[in-house]
Amino acid sequence: MNERWIAERMSRIDASGIRKAFEMARSMRNPVDLSIGMPYFDVDDAIKDAACEAIREGRNQYSVTMGLPELRAAIAATIARYGHADRDVMVTSGTAGALMLALAATVNPGDEVIVLDPYFVMYQHQTTLAGGVTVPVDTYPDFRIDVARIAAAITPRTKVVIVNSPNNPSGVVASAEELKALALLCKERGILLVSDEVYGSLCYDAEFHSPAEWNEDVLVVDGYSKAFGMTGWRLGFAHGPARIIQEMAKLQQFTFVCAPTPLQTGVARAIAGGTLGFAEQKAAYRRKRDLVVEALDGLYELARPDGAFYAFPKAPRGTASEFCAEAIGRELLIIPGNIFSRRDTHFRISYATSDETLKRGLDILRDLAGKA
Amino acid sequence: MNERWIAERMSRIDASGIRKAFEMARSMRNPVDLSIGMPYFDVDDAIKDAACEAIREGRNQYSVTMGLPELRAAIAATIARYGHADRDVMVTSGTAGALMLALAATVNPGDEVIVLDPYFVMYQHQTTLAGGVTVPVDTYPDFRIDVARIAAAITPRTKVVIVNSPNNPSGVVASAEELKALALLCKERGILLVSDEVYGSLCYDAEFHSPAEWNEDVLVVDGYSKAFGMTGWRLGFAHGPARIIQEMAKLQQFTFVCAPTPLQTGVARAIAGGTLGFAEQKAAYRRKRDLVVEALDGLYELARPDGAFYAFPKAPRGTASEFCAEAIGRELLIIPGNIFSRRDTHFRISYATSDETLKRGLDILRDLAGKA
Repeated sequence: MNERWIAERMSRIDASGIRKAFEMARSMRNPVDLSIGMPYFDVDDAIKDAACEAIREGRNQYSVTMGLPELRAAIAATIARYGHADRDVMVTSGTAGALMLALAATVNPGDEVIVLDPYFVMYQHQTTLAGGVTVPVDTYPDFRIDVARIAAAITPRTKVVIVNSPNNPSGVVASAEELKALALLCKERGILLVSDEVYGSLCYDAEFHSPAEWNEDVLVVDGYSKAFGMTGWRLGFAHGPARIIQEMAKLQQFTFVCAPTPLQTGVARAIAGGTLGFAEQKAAYRRKRDLVVEALDGLYELARPDGAFYAFPKAPRGTASEFCAEAIGRELLIIPGNIFSRRDTHFRISYATSDETLKRGLDILRDLAGKA
Repeated sequence: MNERWIAERMSRIDASGIRKAFEMARSMRNPVDLSIGMPYFDVDDAIKDAACEAIREGRNQYSVTMGLPELRAAIAATIARYGHADRDVMVTSGTAGALMLALAATVNPGDEVIVLDPYFVMYQHQTTLAGGVTVPVDTYPDFRIDVARIAAAITPRTKVVIVNSPNNPSGVVASAEELKALALLCKERGILLVSDEVYGSLCYDAEFHSPAEWNEDVLVVDGYSKAFGMTGWRLGFAHGPARIIQEMAKLQQFTFVCAPTPLQTGVARAIAGGTLGFAEQKAAYRRKRDLVVEALDGLYELARPDGAFYAFPKAPRGTASEFCAEAIGRELLIIPGNIFSRRDTHFRISYATSDETLKRGLDILRDLAGKA
């Protein structure tokens, strides 16, 4: 093995942050784990039945590159409200797969991709993989979209802006006004706006909006992982200008090839069956969100998390990394903000866990806030 | 939509060849389709049962990045015979996924990747995606590995050689001597040898050999698609020097994330169950291969296809593209060699189809050979 064989790009990718947290968890005997961004409920029985049926009847070979026509049609029906004649749909291997194809199809070496800080960790690494450079625009302390700040970060090399509402890690949901302003800014400046809407089904107070409502060129990446509790099924989708979707499909042919066929079939049939409800899970998440907000009230600085299943409070002292180390000393696993940010001031709580675990974790956090 | 948004790399990727063939097939009423590289048998019932069980019991969330430990252990057991202390294993989303990670982890912009012509179409596009350049080394007319030709193609920019035996599109299986010579050449010259072994379970006359037998640094990409008849399950794997596997896993974290968890679980459990047999399918493929060789004997120039499910005869007149157009006029769908090659002299037959379809296709080919 020759060290020279490793590509230079690998030295610019440090994807070890969250893994380190997982490894720490493994070294703990009985951790209170509020670190994982994974639905706490299982796949709906109707979807399980349909997927097993698909496997048994032999829907086990490649699907067409763009995805099963019946699944694409189901997705198209949910976005018909935008009324964009040129909007095409493809099925991808998760939202991560959609985003990778989107950036590989658009970003040239040296191009700049604006991300709102704090950001989902993948944006940075996928941009690097495409040869681009991320330009973080700070959204502290309230994690709202300030279009003036974004406009100020635009340069002649800016190719893409990525927006993510509901947001990971903050749980903040952007308002219609914020998203409209961003959509119009990108339209005016000729910049591709990529909207990561994987938490779109998880808005508790505010209504969900997509910037695609105000800009027909917005490229949306989305997926079933969080809504249907199937992060391991690798099922996502993208919709946007037909020309970009076509280029993404070209790349899909020799990378992801297709999303898992029997699982695509299962989801398509279960959707067609019309019995899928998400109200119960959403109500449970809302209740858990309320537990978090109530428990931390007055003890931690916290931007109200209206969506997803995260909260992003400010560490009460020192850096977030130091505070998370303190928490680990108490068997509580939370993620320091510097994994998602150029700042190291906040920490991420995932409340996608049992009420019991969540309450234990919140008790520890209340206790930690009291110490000085 | 701004045409400037499309990345420059996309203009260097023309992945439309096979798609065009599929589109032609769709325009035919009752095509005799010998174009598709897809197993003609379905997944084994033991695997189906195990996958459905995994879905029902809730194995539906992310697996660890490297893949399910029990599946990795099963793969590790099959390669223990190499006795390489440093060889690590990861589960990937298909063989294509393994290869994409391998090239992205190793190829710098401008690096050269030697491929043996004719080659599997993906090699070229995946190399382009990583910013590299493929250097084809001709293996016509017998499709054997001539190490002297490969040595002559090595330059200071050569990073990788990709070898694929049994070969797509020729069906030729490399001998132990050829692979040993190639393995030692790469070792001596400090070049990473990537061995695509996805058809390794499909050798009919000759025995299968891997270059990893003679070079501990060989990176193997492999998968279950062809052996288990599950191209739509997106399950592959890679094994090689731990350092490279570790970098590939870093990339997997934000691209493929993990191979589909319930399907990984199903395959792992079915392998552990020990009832999986492949003898029947292999015997059927061998018989189909014999049908092809007998039907074309004396009419077409053909390098004996000892593995995979392809044959690659020479067009009897004109270019292969012209000949394939003639065949399409007779409702026979075959793929012209220029999809896989810098030459346009041969055409690919896939015999992974029913005996009836295969016989109809071979009759048309016999008939076409007679015309001038």
